[in-house]
Amino acid sequence: MNLKPLGDRVIVKQDEAEETTASGLFLATEAKEKPQSGTVLAVGDGKLDKDGNLVPVPVKVGDKVVYGKFGGTEINVEGEDVLILRGDDLYAVFA
Amino acid sequence: MNLKPLGDRVIVKQDEAEETTASGLFLATEAKEKPQSGTVLAVGDGKLDKDGNLVPVPVKVGDKVVYGKFGGTEINVEGEDVLILRGDDLYAVFA
Amino acid sequence: MNLKPLGDRVIVKQDEAEETTASGLFLATEAKEKPQSGTVLAVGDGKLDKDGNLVPVPVKVGDKVVYGKFGGTEINVEGEDVLILRGDDLYAVFA
Amino acid sequence: MNLKPLGDRVIVKQDEAEETTASGLFLATEAKEKPQSGTVLAVGDGKLDKDGNLVPVPVKVGDKVVYGKFGGTEINVEGEDVLILRGDDLYAVFA
Amino acid sequence: MNLKPLGDRVIVKQDEAEETTASGLFLATEAKEKPQSGTVLAVGDGKLDKDGNLVPVPVKVGDKVVYGKFGGTEINVEGEDVLILRGDDLYAVFA
Amino acid sequence: MNLKPLGDRVIVKQDEAEETTASGLFLATEAKEKPQSGTVLAVGDGKLDKDGNLVPVPVKVGDKVVYGKFGGTEINVEGEDVLILRGDDLYAVFA
Amino acid sequence: MNLKPLGDRVIVKQDEAEETTASGLFLATEAKEKPQSGTVLAVGDGKLDKDGNLVPVPVKVGDKVVYGKFGGTEINVEGEDVLILRGDDLYAVFA
Repeated sequence: MNLKPLGDRVIVKQDEAEETTASGLFLATEAKEKPQSGTVLAVGDGKLDKDGNLVPVPVKVGDKVVYGKFGGTEINVEGEDVLILRGDDLYAVFA
Repeated sequence: MNLKPLGDRVIVKQDEAEETTASGLFLATEAKEKPQSGTVLAVGDGKLDKDGNLVPVPVKVGDKVVYGKFGGTEINVEGEDVLILRGDDLYAVFA
Repeated sequence: MNLKPLGDRVIVKQDEAEETTASGLFLATEAKEKPQSGTVLAVGDGKLDKDGNLVPVPVKVGDKVVYGKFGGTEINVEGEDVLILRGDDLYAVFA
Repeated sequence: MNLKPLGDRVIVKQDEAEETTASGLFLATEAKEKPQSGTVLAVGDGKLDKDGNLVPVPVKVGDKVVYGKFGGTEINVEGEDVLILRGDDLYAVFA
Repeated sequence: MNLKPLGDRVIVKQDEAEETTASGLFLATEAKEKPQSGTVLAVGDGKLDKDGNLVPVPVKVGDKVVYGKFGGTEINVEGEDVLILRGDDLYAVFA
Repeated sequence: MNLKPLGDRVIVKQDEAEETTASGLFLATEAKEKPQSGTVLAVGDGKLDKDGNLVPVPVKVGDKVVYGKFGGTEINVEGEDVLILRGDDLYAVFA
Repeated sequence: MNLKPLGDRVIVKQDEAEETTASGLFLATEAKEKPQSGTVLAVGDGKLDKDGNLVPVPVKVGDKVVYGKFGGTEINVEGEDVLILRGDDLYAVFA
């Protein structure tokens, strides 16, 4: 992908909305904010802390992640729907 | 569990909603926000303070904890309902 | 009590709602937020300041305290109703 | 008084609601938030700044003060109605 | 005046509400928040910055100032209506 | 002008509301908050950063600026309508 | 362009609202806040961090960017509609 996220943002390809994902993640229907799972396509350089040091986003391209969709923005790049999120909107990563 | 929480998040398996838990915790019905108890399944690495030092979450896998459900997100991993919380949503731990 | 508060939280046993407490504290009925008095049962380790130093909660087990109930959470542990509060919700301590 | 305010809180005995106080302070009736005057009964140790140094409250027991009642909490200690305020709610002191 | 403002507060005597002041200041009637002009009667010691250094209020007794009335509190001291403001509510000073 | 802005405030003389200004700036009518252009008449000394160093406002008297009117306050000084703004409300300067 | 953005602001020329841009970016119609793409025309010097160091905006003139329009302000300079944004409103840059 030739689109580079800025700061601590990441670009994620969302999993298909089937009930069970390959990694065995079910999304509980009663949750207040429906979390989602997907695959990381691109990662920004991170954000600067108060001392000017760069804090990297703790995921890498190819990681399967669980995230809240609340803060994200959907775009379509070269025919593919993707989501731009901040690193803090990522809840967990499949190890 | 192969799902690793990011930052200061933890994954908790909620206690069954029976009135009395094994640890003797009753949840008062008149409380504004119903606290809950559960068992820690996974713990993130912690969050960075202003000087870039990692502040670990003060609980470990297997701990019985009391928490507010307000900030949490329910997901279902491999058929098991769990909750992802931030460390600050944990109120107390059974010693 | 085998329940340890996390961070700057404390666990308080509330005084009975009689008009005059042993320590002579009346709670004014016209107050916006009704303050309450009680006895400290357990105290967390404190919270970290910006430099990573631990700031202890300025009360100890057995202290009689006045607090605002606003931020607290009621739970029932081993048949006893108690309140989990943050240290900043404590207004004063009987010397 | 055997009740010690915590942090930067102070305990104030409110002046009687007569129109003119001994110190000649009239409270303007058209003010958005009616300021009040009273006498300081007890003072907390102060609050910690970002470097962990204690910043004392700039009044002492016996001072006549003007304050906004907005953030205060009324309690009755040993038959006397008093007000617990934060130091920042104090506007001015009679020199 | 024997009333000393605390922190970065100042006490101001408001100009009469005549259309033109001695300093030639007209207050535009269409303004969202009507600014006002007056004379500084008393000045607090200032506020502490993050390093604990005192930052003085940049006006002195006798200065003619323009200010927003929004954050101020009116009181009447010894028969004189005055206004207690924070230093940040002062917009400009006549040089 | 004998009126000195305090802190990071500036005083601006607004351009006439003609559609095209001398500098060729049109203000788009569909904009959420209508930006405006004008000329800087006076500049405050700047504001202090967290280390107590003065950060000057990045414009000087005579600069043509584009600004959002949202945070500004209109006053009339010696018969002239002017606007007092904070430096952060200035969007751009004509080079 | 003779208009220089202040601080961490940038000036962007928006892409035409055709469905497919030259870089293959489709904007998903169901998105909460419609992101947009455009070309950077001018870049401010950046903003100061807490230690007074300048943090530059991570794009340069000519870059194709994706941004949220929420915080931006439309103006018309020399007959050309442009948008003034803060650097943090830029989501991604085409590499």
